[in-house]
Amino acid sequence: MASMEKPLLFGYFRSSCTWRVRIALALKGIEYDHHIINLIKDGGQQLTDEYQQVNPMMQVPALRIDGVTLSQSLAIIEYLEETRPSPALLPRDPIQRARCRMISDHITSGIQPLQNLAVLKKVGDESQEWAKHFISRGFQALERLLEDTAGRYCVGDEVTMADLCLVPQVANANRFKMDMTPYPIISRINQSLLELEAFQISHPSRQPDTPAELRA
Amino acid sequence: MASMEKPLLFGYFRSSCTWRVRIALALKGIEYDHHIINLIKDGGQQLTDEYQQVNPMMQVPALRIDGVTLSQSLAIIEYLEETRPSPALLPRDPIQRARCRMISDHITSGIQPLQNLAVLKKVGDESQEWAKHFISRGFQALERLLEDTAGRYCVGDEVTMADLCLVPQVANANRFKMDMTPYPIISRINQSLLELEAFQISHPSRQPDTPAELRA
Repeated sequence: MASMEKPLLFGYFRSSCTWRVRIALALKGIEYDHHIINLIKDGGQQLTDEYQQVNPMMQVPALRIDGVTLSQSLAIIEYLEETRPSPALLPRDPIQRARCRMISDHITSGIQPLQNLAVLKKVGDESQEWAKHFISRGFQALERLLEDTAGRYCVGDEVTMADLCLVPQVANANRFKMDMTPYPIISRINQSLLELEAFQISHPSRQPDTPAELRA
Repeated sequence: MASMEKPLLFGYFRSSCTWRVRIALALKGIEYDHHIINLIKDGGQQLTDEYQQVNPMMQVPALRIDGVTLSQSLAIIEYLEETRPSPALLPRDPIQRARCRMISDHITSGIQPLQNLAVLKKVGDESQEWAKHFISRGFQALERLLEDTAGRYCVGDEVTMADLCLVPQVANANRFKMDMTPYPIISRINQSLLELEAFQISHPSRQPDTPAELRA
């Protein structure tokens, strides 16, 4: 299945959706090249005609792999899971898999889209309050979902796709200087995950395009 | 795997996310009971303490099935696919599966969350313009993605999960009175799908809670 060509990740160090995919690639030990799409510079390099050919939605990430270019982080992660199944990022049990996808979708559909760059630009002056509102709403629900599903990590004691969504979303919350004390389970899981190498090497502070002042 | 108890769908006739799941249940021939959550009445029945126990995110749909309650439409559909695989709603080929999920996520993460009820309430006076803006942005990209993936339907010639996302999103666009002429592929696929029985019996105009004046 896997082609000989190295996968190419179109991404940006600070993009939480890109980070999800970087973690997946790291966990699965897949080597890849970076194609930096700077979301700020030149008014946003994702808006160029050239990048529209890669991803018509003009968002990162996109992954060129096995002769195809895929966008949407969860679709990419599910593809990696199906073609490079080890180590697994989804549980085996169908109900646990469903819980993993439920939490993943909760973050990727219910929280992140409402606080991404294009939306906050559209919101304008009140964008900070807006972002905090929707992240809080999402985290309140997530905390309750995790009461039922969490072990050491989001779903039981193994790292799953849900964890790949959690950590970048908490990083976004931190950027908005949100108080995390109402979310003890989220905070605990986030801390545990940040101790793992795959989460560290994929961290926004350690990417080729990380500015010097933000480097770990 | 399947329990003897009939699945219970918490939903609302006009919710596009609920409609996705209704189509999946119809295609797979799964009988279920409706638990109506009226998103308008009583200030929104999804906001009650009782419903928060079902789905902490206070959104529809949720599906009680096989002894568990799941939320997030795609997680529900993937669960149905894994536990009741026939007829299939995902292609067999991994790249086609990835394309199917990419288009599904594009709609469920990239479009719908930006025009749902809670967000439009938050936007206030300019909510119609806001919704049109984000649906247009999403449809422009979707039209281009479909150039590569579509056959008779979104991904090839079989109905897939992507189609379950497309039709309800076009219905939302119609509610916002959007001009669909810039999107000939989306429009063609939508028309083809609306001819299928599963899309008809699951249609918002034919649900137990459809008001008389909106009934087909």
